[in-house]
Amino acid sequence: MTDPGFALDCPVPRTGYDRIVMAHGGGGRLSADLLQKVFLPAYGNKILSQLEDQATLDWEGGRLAFTTDAFVVRPIFFPGGDIGKLAINGTVNDLAVGGARPLYISAAFILEEGLPIEDLERIVASMRDACRAAKVVLVTGDTKVVDQGKGDKVFIATSGIGVVPDGVTLSIRGARPGDRIVLSGTIGDHGMAILSQREGIELESTLESDTAPLGELAQNALRACPSIRLMRDPTRGGLASTLNELAQASGVGVRIEEERIPLRPEVKGACEILGLDPLYIANEGKLVAVVPDKDSDRLVETLRAHPLGRNAVVIGEILADGPGIVRAKSRIGGERIVSLLAGEPLPRIC
Amino acid sequence: MTDPGFALDCPVPRTGYDRIVMAHGGGGRLSADLLQKVFLPAYGNKILSQLEDQATLDWEGGRLAFTTDAFVVRPIFFPGGDIGKLAINGTVNDLAVGGARPLYISAAFILEEGLPIEDLERIVASMRDACRAAKVVLVTGDTKVVDQGKGDKVFIATSGIGVVPDGVTLSIRGARPGDRIVLSGTIGDHGMAILSQREGIELESTLESDTAPLGELAQNALRACPSIRLMRDPTRGGLASTLNELAQASGVGVRIEEERIPLRPEVKGACEILGLDPLYIANEGKLVAVVPDKDSDRLVETLRAHPLGRNAVVIGEILADGPGIVRAKSRIGGERIVSLLAGEPLPRIC
Repeated sequence: MTDPGFALDCPVPRTGYDRIVMAHGGGGRLSADLLQKVFLPAYGNKILSQLEDQATLDWEGGRLAFTTDAFVVRPIFFPGGDIGKLAINGTVNDLAVGGARPLYISAAFILEEGLPIEDLERIVASMRDACRAAKVVLVTGDTKVVDQGKGDKVFIATSGIGVVPDGVTLSIRGARPGDRIVLSGTIGDHGMAILSQREGIELESTLESDTAPLGELAQNALRACPSIRLMRDPTRGGLASTLNELAQASGVGVRIEEERIPLRPEVKGACEILGLDPLYIANEGKLVAVVPDKDSDRLVETLRAHPLGRNAVVIGEILADGPGIVRAKSRIGGERIVSLLAGEPLPRIC
Repeated sequence: MTDPGFALDCPVPRTGYDRIVMAHGGGGRLSADLLQKVFLPAYGNKILSQLEDQATLDWEGGRLAFTTDAFVVRPIFFPGGDIGKLAINGTVNDLAVGGARPLYISAAFILEEGLPIEDLERIVASMRDACRAAKVVLVTGDTKVVDQGKGDKVFIATSGIGVVPDGVTLSIRGARPGDRIVLSGTIGDHGMAILSQREGIELESTLESDTAPLGELAQNALRACPSIRLMRDPTRGGLASTLNELAQASGVGVRIEEERIPLRPEVKGACEILGLDPLYIANEGKLVAVVPDKDSDRLVETLRAHPLGRNAVVIGEILADGPGIVRAKSRIGGERIVSLLAGEPLPRIC
């Protein structure tokens, strides 16, 4: 959206394309057309509409959080969302778990030649709604087109900027023995929604992605419990990967109780049929926090008071024993080691 | 690089992969492997090495510039650079032409399964060198992998943050009749270097991309001539598109003299053989500035004092006549209209 060749003030001929062609990425008249007919009507705001090569933002000072993510999810539309909603929420959440208040978003689109314009419009509208819900503003962007067969419909890379309130110093290295691990809700919803859509698996009830913006939930948590050591959103690799990561970075042991972890019956059922472990399935709207024991009940209460944290619970604790190791106490009482897998069992889930 | 599943402190087994596999994008052990063996050795800095989901940056206040670009250039290695160098310089330049001092960069990689790790390492090293040359720091990133045949080796989306010095208010709407148009050097080098590489065209001498970081050149220009109305880097769509864009946005006419525009003999020759107009060919290290007449000589001198502006010249002027129209006086005296094309004549040049 901020490339040379975008011509805001010239009359745009109605070209009547219903699919993306290479020239939509060429920086000329068709790029301007796409900008004016698809992107600006959706995202138009005072900053983006300047159409400069960069957005200029007033900044009051203080610390700034900066993050980026590429989204390559397949299929691009799935129950509960689409690649656009995922891209906005994913970037918002990477800011949120750092304790930052998300403010500004950039979006770079890589479109495959032949993509129906209608699909692009649907994604763009969904991103607009996601920005509104997360209270962020999309201020700059870019669009490229690749030849048919050299991409996969649409990839989106989003970056985000947020402000970190004074006093917030979360760190993946901050977990201490005795701390509690709090989870904001059910796990595996996003990954299983994608899988069921992709593989055409029929489930008894519709399973939806949990994609949601965690900015407000995270800010509420930090205000109520400034003692929080760290927060993460367990996306690719699932809760298991997040727990392994913090165990290794903090040099501590982690023990969770499986029966405490909230699980939708349909996710549980689908995982059993497919032989998948929900601990490794991706989430896109869940928060994990490590907090001193004395504040864990207050944190759970605070999370439960927000619609995105209704099922919040303490799922385990941080131990001095077994640094870098994650153990899960099973429903029948045994204990197993929850290791870091080579990769996510379901590729391209985000 | 800032995703769950990256395990900084755990011993990383030598997996011995020499090509990208899907699990390198899965957020598990192989993602951590890629991060530790490829990305961190190249970009390692205090902020990135925190491995949080977001980079946290101190900020003194003032205005902040924010930009993003996706890079899909084909081939990924070309004379004078590669997709990585292009990605860093392109984002640096979008900040620079807004008058900002580029500071921080994010990079999101979309890798195609099967990409040789060696190619990735070469690109990553080139980005590291480009960051150093541009005096920017890569502080956050992400890596995704798509199935073979669903991407094209590697796509990179970079975003950048810079600080806008007090008093700088450049705008694409700022050109006024009587102003001069200054160009920092030869045109068409990047596009023709890509084309010659792609199509295997033999040229008498090696033609190289002009990809370069314009931050210092732009800051020098602004310090010497605070009266500069606007700056742009004429990338996709070439100089013609940049001039059309500013003519339309500022509601002014533009007249350039073709014989003043610096052109390498090999670019001129190749354009003549192929029937291409160099005005439409992409540049990746050139700056166009519009400046009041009285300051144009000083601007040219200032640009010429910098290695990237050695061939700077006044190429034309801003007119009240013919708002939105770009005219070129040809070498033999006639005048033609330089219109905005539908797209870039050479797809995927950046």
